[in-house]
Amino acid sequence: MNQIDPSAIGQLFTDARTHAAWQDRAVPDSVLKDLYDLMKWGPTSGNSTPARMVFVRSPAQKAVLLECMAPGNVEKTRTAPVTAIVAYDLAFFEHLPRLFPHADMRTGFAANPERAARAALMNGSLQGGYFILAARALGLDCGPMGGFDAEKVNAAFFADSTWRVNFICNLGYGDAARLHPRGPRLSFDEACRIV
Amino acid sequence: MNQIDPSAIGQLFTDARTHAAWQDRAVPDSVLKDLYDLMKWGPTSGNSTPARMVFVRSPAQKAVLLECMAPGNVEKTRTAPVTAIVAYDLAFFEHLPRLFPHADMRTGFAANPERAARAALMNGSLQGGYFILAARALGLDCGPMGGFDAEKVNAAFFADSTWRVNFICNLGYGDAARLHPRGPRLSFDEACRIV
Repeated sequence: MNQIDPSAIGQLFTDARTHAAWQDRAVPDSVLKDLYDLMKWGPTSGNSTPARMVFVRSPAQKAVLLECMAPGNVEKTRTAPVTAIVAYDLAFFEHLPRLFPHADMRTGFAANPERAARAALMNGSLQGGYFILAARALGLDCGPMGGFDAEKVNAAFFADSTWRVNFICNLGYGDAARLHPRGPRLSFDEACRIV
Repeated sequence: MNQIDPSAIGQLFTDARTHAAWQDRAVPDSVLKDLYDLMKWGPTSGNSTPARMVFVRSPAQKAVLLECMAPGNVEKTRTAPVTAIVAYDLAFFEHLPRLFPHADMRTGFAANPERAARAALMNGSLQGGYFILAARALGLDCGPMGGFDAEKVNAAFFADSTWRVNFICNLGYGDAARLHPRGPRLSFDEACRIV
């Protein structure tokens, strides 16, 4: 295989930015379904795929979510056409007999909730990376956020569920004129070694 | 923005597979540097970027790594041109005054190693997703693996370091003729809700 074309590299990685201001342009449900149908293919340990998404778009549910956000994240979330609660399912292992029928992966997780929770966070975050890049591949801009009250989000959206919030991500078409300068990154020699 | 072209969508998501058999084709160091220079741009909480990579290619270091792998992962790792130890730095917060100068994010993590470890795992895994898709964008195939002895890997590669292994990923040009059938995924309605 060859590299994908430079404009796609730019859209996914080198030119892509975290957005906080949004154009007045809707995101149809069909795009959210396309987004899931891309991100779902990314690899996870034992095909465990613990990530779960709640796409919040109704004014009533958006208002509930806004109550959970840190003050600096309220306005960008209020104005985003859709906000995704990217969660993971602590009981993801119940699907393993279907998702990974080659061996019994379920029993070990069912017997060890701490191990299951760590695997849900790790693989659910890996899928969070696929989610963000799949959204960009579809032409969406993302505004992922860690600034929210996780207990409030879990109480409001997952009270009778084994799903737990991981991070929250605004989705829409960003207003590039309102971006701030980009933060620096570590150099290859700081973050990598070849041995 | 528009969707990236269908062939790139296929290369990244819909046609991409986890590989275990490799063509006899080298991966130059320059491609590993290109890979880091793409994945590094993916967003993380507070620009914390805790992921660290050790690219293992020398026979001596490969032999050390093989001692740490689960039996089913030895041959695929031995034959891969490069194997990446995708790690995270438990002391990632020491870089925050440079990476996120807008506020003091360092002190809170330095005072709470458990919170720092969870953030390193979460953001390091998010970057693991960027890593896999950046490799595919460059035309590489990936073979990510969870089957290894993490204590052995940490002892062998990170004894005097704050880096810790997260997952291990073979890199090269896969032999598509030797792929197994693809595992199923959850449906949109199983994994997502729109509210």
